[in-house]
Amino acid sequence: MQESDKNAMSTRSGEPSYLNLLERMQSGEKLALAKLVTSVENDAPFVPEIMERIYPKTGKCYSFGVTGPPGAGKSTLVDKLIARIRERGQAVGVIAVDPSSPFSGGAVLGDRIRMQRHALDEGVFIRSLGTRGTGGGLSRATGEVLRLFDAFGMDVVIIETVGVGQTELDIVDIADTTLVVLVPESGDTVQTMKAGLMEIADIFIVNKADRDGAEKMVSDLKGMVALTEYGDTDWKVPVLLSQANQDLGIDEIYEELGSHKAHFDTHTNSGERKAKIRRRHFMEILGYRFLKKLENLEQEDERFRNYLKQVQQEDANPYQIAKSFFQDEDFAREIFGTGGGL
Amino acid sequence: MQESDKNAMSTRSGEPSYLNLLERMQSGEKLALAKLVTSVENDAPFVPEIMERIYPKTGKCYSFGVTGPPGAGKSTLVDKLIARIRERGQAVGVIAVDPSSPFSGGAVLGDRIRMQRHALDEGVFIRSLGTRGTGGGLSRATGEVLRLFDAFGMDVVIIETVGVGQTELDIVDIADTTLVVLVPESGDTVQTMKAGLMEIADIFIVNKADRDGAEKMVSDLKGMVALTEYGDTDWKVPVLLSQANQDLGIDEIYEELGSHKAHFDTHTNSGERKAKIRRRHFMEILGYRFLKKLENLEQEDERFRNYLKQVQQEDANPYQIAKSFFQDEDFAREIFGTGGGL
Repeated sequence: MQESDKNAMSTRSGEPSYLNLLERMQSGEKLALAKLVTSVENDAPFVPEIMERIYPKTGKCYSFGVTGPPGAGKSTLVDKLIARIRERGQAVGVIAVDPSSPFSGGAVLGDRIRMQRHALDEGVFIRSLGTRGTGGGLSRATGEVLRLFDAFGMDVVIIETVGVGQTELDIVDIADTTLVVLVPESGDTVQTMKAGLMEIADIFIVNKADRDGAEKMVSDLKGMVALTEYGDTDWKVPVLLSQANQDLGIDEIYEELGSHKAHFDTHTNSGERKAKIRRRHFMEILGYRFLKKLENLEQEDERFRNYLKQVQQEDANPYQIAKSFFQDEDFAREIFGTGGGL
Repeated sequence: MQESDKNAMSTRSGEPSYLNLLERMQSGEKLALAKLVTSVENDAPFVPEIMERIYPKTGKCYSFGVTGPPGAGKSTLVDKLIARIRERGQAVGVIAVDPSSPFSGGAVLGDRIRMQRHALDEGVFIRSLGTRGTGGGLSRATGEVLRLFDAFGMDVVIIETVGVGQTELDIVDIADTTLVVLVPESGDTVQTMKAGLMEIADIFIVNKADRDGAEKMVSDLKGMVALTEYGDTDWKVPVLLSQANQDLGIDEIYEELGSHKAHFDTHTNSGERKAKIRRRHFMEILGYRFLKKLENLEQEDERFRNYLKQVQQEDANPYQIAKSFFQDEDFAREIFGTGGGL
């Protein structure tokens, strides 16, 4: 059976409907883009095919991530930055990622309301992405949505993460530039801030700058920046003050984004950094395809289903069974076959 | 070359040193256990071999996870529960997982100090586990440390997570029972609490019960529990009050843990639940081994290195290259070969 027949409904003309969707997206139809984002969210079987097709059209947009603790004012800041980007006539996509920290639930809803005033603007597309079943899935999905936005023709893509855990850091890492937004009350946590966070920040923002302790926090952060080793770059991480709800300090942030983008584009090491990102992306694709192929085996292969039955026995040793799996030539042919989809 | 030669230093007798370590661990040597935990943390190449060997000795301990927002008093509660478990003469292991939410940095240090009074107790082993490079790695490592503790002979293993994101939920999910610890101030978040959290909680604790709003919170939670569908179990999720720092309410929690364990052991669906866990574990092992085999290829295979070089070209399409990889019979032989380690 042909891959296209297996993976998707076909239109009356015989062309798979997802290719039709892709065509409509590429001609600028937002509804088609929205449907493809949903396909990524639902992990539809034709997504790898879509990604392969759009890939040559990507790499054109500039993306930045915005992260920080809950209540730091990230969404208000993003809202003001959208306005600046739109003033220049650029199209902007926003991916509001909610790694489903169950204790900060509801945050995304409020955020989306805050950005609502842009909802009717043709040049703005806001989309939230929720929990995925397994670790890593959300970060992969975010990367794929970014590439869809890129292929659609967005000039700028903003990735806002609501939470602050490992998953969120993985996500922000997908962007060209990372903004870390703090508030004066974060002072204590700055003292104990992990080296990992210092290294991901390309720009620090101390928002709600009218509150006590803002200046002290800026100088603390500057001190920490001075002490941090930024291995492969000579970018000097700036620490900026803002009051996003008063629209204060936004122009400076916008300008620093531009400087970092320019630095990123022209820096001698930027080629190396991009190569590293591509390499990691490739390894992720291989891992993901392997898991998808296992899911296919589960659907279609009697022998693999027997392996799974065996594993579920009380006295089974899954490590041993995994070893036999990789010694089994039949599975080698299945996983590496030219058939079997994907 | 033999796998054992390749993967580890050998002792003078020719036996790989990790097998010696395993033997010492199995004879009750804590230092050997500590070294094996470190091997899991560092992702040492012989870990799958160790896991395969200890697996038949696992499945005997009872494990519970403790999660909740920062400041809920999780570590104090764990400290008091350790005391109860020790009063019964049972050996207990604690895995304090820090998914490295950079904004809650330093929490683990304080927690470990709080549990310090047990550090000299022969029947207690406390270990923290930090960030892993990629999403999913921390949850896998936690599962493997749990199995090491189990094989070592721990009667009870407690998995405490500091953060509250997706990664943390994956981790807690490894345990037999999950305690979700909240405080009266969490009231607002309870209103917006995700269904996902409701479903993972086997027991709710409202800690710091002397504070305003504790009773209201208990009744809110009870209301939500009543409305939640717990598909495959008829366990009634209790909502308990505690003041861990005053040692109040701890006996009730300890008792409910026992009830849930008994329920879990005897419930008609517990076999099904265990089979599901084993199946997921097996799929994880397959995915992990696949990634390890790719790392080996990168070290040893010229052709794979050429694929990686190709991917890093400006105009490369990683999706297309991934497709060719899986159509390449040479790689099928490498990945599924009987040689090549693992």
